[in-house]
Amino acid sequence: MTGPAIGRAACVGGGVIGGGWVARFLLAGIDVDVFDPHPDAQRIVGEVVSNAERAYAMLTYAPLPPRGRLVFHDSLAEAVATADWIQESVPERLDLKRSVLAEIDAAAQPGAIIGSSTSGLLPTDLQAEMAHPERLFVAHPYNPVYLLPLVELVGGQQTDKAVLGRAQTALQAIGMKGVVIHREIEAFVGDRLLEALWREALWLVKDDVCDVETLDDVIRYSFGLRWAQMGLFQTYRIAGGEAGMRHFLQQFGPCLAWPWTRLTDVPEMDAALVDKIAAQSDAQAGGLSIRELERLRDENLVGILQSLKAGDGGKGWGAGRLLAEFEQTLQASASPSPDAGGRLRLLSATVSPAWIDYNGHMTEHRYLQLFGEATDAFLRLIGVDADYVAGGSSYYTVESHLRHLGQARAGQRLDVETFLLGHDAKRLHLAHAITDEAGATLATAEHMLLHVTAERAAPAPPAVAAALNGVAQRAAHLPRPDYVGRAVAMPQAKP
Amino acid sequence: MTGPAIGRAACVGGGVIGGGWVARFLLAGIDVDVFDPHPDAQRIVGEVVSNAERAYAMLTYAPLPPRGRLVFHDSLAEAVATADWIQESVPERLDLKRSVLAEIDAAAQPGAIIGSSTSGLLPTDLQAEMAHPERLFVAHPYNPVYLLPLVELVGGQQTDKAVLGRAQTALQAIGMKGVVIHREIEAFVGDRLLEALWREALWLVKDDVCDVETLDDVIRYSFGLRWAQMGLFQTYRIAGGEAGMRHFLQQFGPCLAWPWTRLTDVPEMDAALVDKIAAQSDAQAGGLSIRELERLRDENLVGILQSLKAGDGGKGWGAGRLLAEFEQTLQASASPSPDAGGRLRLLSATVSPAWIDYNGHMTEHRYLQLFGEATDAFLRLIGVDADYVAGGSSYYTVESHLRHLGQARAGQRLDVETFLLGHDAKRLHLAHAITDEAGATLATAEHMLLHVTAERAAPAPPAVAAALNGVAQRAAHLPRPDYVGRAVAMPQAKP
Repeated sequence: MTGPAIGRAACVGGGVIGGGWVARFLLAGIDVDVFDPHPDAQRIVGEVVSNAERAYAMLTYAPLPPRGRLVFHDSLAEAVATADWIQESVPERLDLKRSVLAEIDAAAQPGAIIGSSTSGLLPTDLQAEMAHPERLFVAHPYNPVYLLPLVELVGGQQTDKAVLGRAQTALQAIGMKGVVIHREIEAFVGDRLLEALWREALWLVKDDVCDVETLDDVIRYSFGLRWAQMGLFQTYRIAGGEAGMRHFLQQFGPCLAWPWTRLTDVPEMDAALVDKIAAQSDAQAGGLSIRELERLRDENLVGILQSLKAGDGGKGWGAGRLLAEFEQTLQASASPSPDAGGRLRLLSATVSPAWIDYNGHMTEHRYLQLFGEATDAFLRLIGVDADYVAGGSSYYTVESHLRHLGQARAGQRLDVETFLLGHDAKRLHLAHAITDEAGATLATAEHMLLHVTAERAAPAPPAVAAALNGVAQRAAHLPRPDYVGRAVAMPQAKP
Repeated sequence: MTGPAIGRAACVGGGVIGGGWVARFLLAGIDVDVFDPHPDAQRIVGEVVSNAERAYAMLTYAPLPPRGRLVFHDSLAEAVATADWIQESVPERLDLKRSVLAEIDAAAQPGAIIGSSTSGLLPTDLQAEMAHPERLFVAHPYNPVYLLPLVELVGGQQTDKAVLGRAQTALQAIGMKGVVIHREIEAFVGDRLLEALWREALWLVKDDVCDVETLDDVIRYSFGLRWAQMGLFQTYRIAGGEAGMRHFLQQFGPCLAWPWTRLTDVPEMDAALVDKIAAQSDAQAGGLSIRELERLRDENLVGILQSLKAGDGGKGWGAGRLLAEFEQTLQASASPSPDAGGRLRLLSATVSPAWIDYNGHMTEHRYLQLFGEATDAFLRLIGVDADYVAGGSSYYTVESHLRHLGQARAGQRLDVETFLLGHDAKRLHLAHAITDEAGATLATAEHMLLHVTAERAAPAPPAVAAALNGVAQRAAHLPRPDYVGRAVAMPQAKP
């Protein structure tokens, strides 16, 4: 791996975590070689990839690159031979991981770097038997790997620090957040925190203070909402009020010595406790299968990520800003253009369940959102992109006309075709049509846009005008949509 | 308090938590009496209420009731005398809370119930000196109280169980989620979990495994996103795969015995640790003041709650379903109607920062969302409400025309006026205008809607027709908006 970007990836171990890595790579356009001797590996990876594709279709309108090619191999050596990034996700046993990593190390090309998905083992221990230990690091992700951006990056005593930097850059290019943990300790940071909370939770359930549903509700109606956007310390900084963190620590520090947690004991996971928790968990699930819960979770995560993407006045906040940056990367590397026949099919999308209204259909303003995204894709095509807007000019929509001809339902794939109806120095007249998979038109839009500079109407520069002329010329032979120029009106009463 | 609803509330102690309770009550239309001898109490409560009003304006379009009346009193007895629900939020000292609660108990009317905001003290200890201990319970909320719905309800040995039920019902009516904790233990459930995690976090920072920003990033890019929608157990149920919870416990149970956490030690909160964390926290805040962080937090929470409200195919999920239910309560108790002059001003809203696009203005499709909300308010006015839709009939929008005349910015208040332009057996022709606080029109919309039954166009029933006639009659003298009937078109080229 010579540059920061991953050209080809290999995944050794294809369970839920390995499959999540496979999905991240594939959807970022990277070819992936997989080795996993488990008989169900192809099915499991396939299911994770299909969940990921469903989620991405709802998550973003950015032009995803063509999906990478997925190849399963019968030998580990063959699978890792040409990869730049090799990710190991085999079961959590030191002896197994060590031997697998040694095998990977022996077969990998010299420039490749090797991440381990271990959630707790020390990289120093993992790299002990490797010929090139400097390229091994922990890259610990969180499930679902295709939606949660975090990767804890941890180096061992023999890890080259530059490798961690390369990993961080490579992860950013596929929409993930590599966070470097300074010192290696077992379980790193995230699982340390989870472990402490999990242990306490088990005691609360074992001691009948509450059941699992109540405990989950306590989390998701309170601090869970907080932590989707700010962590523990930032939240407490605010809680400290104007005096901030110092005040908070002085006020609440002493409470730590109170005997509030059963920290020293480990609850025994005996049959009685397993039965109790499993039964309560069944009751909580209310008959929803794991597959259904997974879909609900993914839809919720998509909605949360999208809401955070709009945060901080449109700049994006936390995981949402990361998503916005990823989309910019995708847009910069894609160059949408008219097809061979001059037609502008610049956008496809899948209807998110979060877009459904009380009538069970895609809600009205989401059509306009989709039309707006198609307009943005058209504007990028003629050179009006993020840099252009940052330069102080843009096109503003001044008038729109929408028709609703059919209904879109959750999960349905929609395509948008765009028509350049007219343009002059300042004006841009566009139409869009949304069609379903069968080609039926569900909605149309007609827009008039005005070119502005410093918030005032102003002629577009020559480069934009030339681009518009080019698009118009290539489409000159296409028929004009027949719905153009309509007004909203009641039918005339019959005389 | 005879029924489940709170007629009048009293808050004893008006800090950030007490102020949060005050805001919840006031914005639900409940009058609040406050006693707090602190010289800054009025300012602090005022700031919290103003934050809450800003957040609610972004959070929901539901018709909020007229804000309750806020009265500060010089004596505790006077403040609590006429309340149905009295909430104690004084500092966390048992002796202080006991004496304040005894004072409240002596002055409260017989039917009143008394909640304590304590985050850790046992209700049995709190009620020990009360003449009517059966009406005392812990009602432990989370900051910001006006946005986070959770209230842990915990009874002591002398608490009447029926009081907890009444509290739960009353909280639901103000948009909160009362969760009953079965057994009283110090710190209840939420703070037990937080305490365990907080202690571990302090060690990680003290030992230089990571800094506070890294630790926060680990949370908010991974499990924080999960926990905004599902808790610990439901998440792990999914992680267990098709085999579910039992499998997960058997697989990961043994890990608990690993020496991953520094559970037995309490990190000493000495000057060095306070300095370290405070300095790292300053660096993390990057110059943002507490007030700015608070606003960003609230905006993010609003966005997350709104995204969860659209979850599960529009039914709402978790805290989002709670919000949807709260809105239904508000809509059921409000009866929007034409004003004395027959004008339809049914909706006002504040522009959420999450609605701003890359140009710095309210994004296009959010105008249509606002117009759609105004249409819904109009439909409720003519009897087409949630029950009506559940009965299988509704109005669908078939055509819209929008004009953008000005720009809306974050935090701006917008009003929508609606015009009934025409109607027949199946059709409904509406217009809306969005104006800013100065009365300038920022956008207009014109819609044609079609009445449907079982997804097919069908005449509206007589009651709806009569309601439409009534609205039309009262508005007959008003001028017709001059923008009606426009089509989108390029200006004609001069010959």
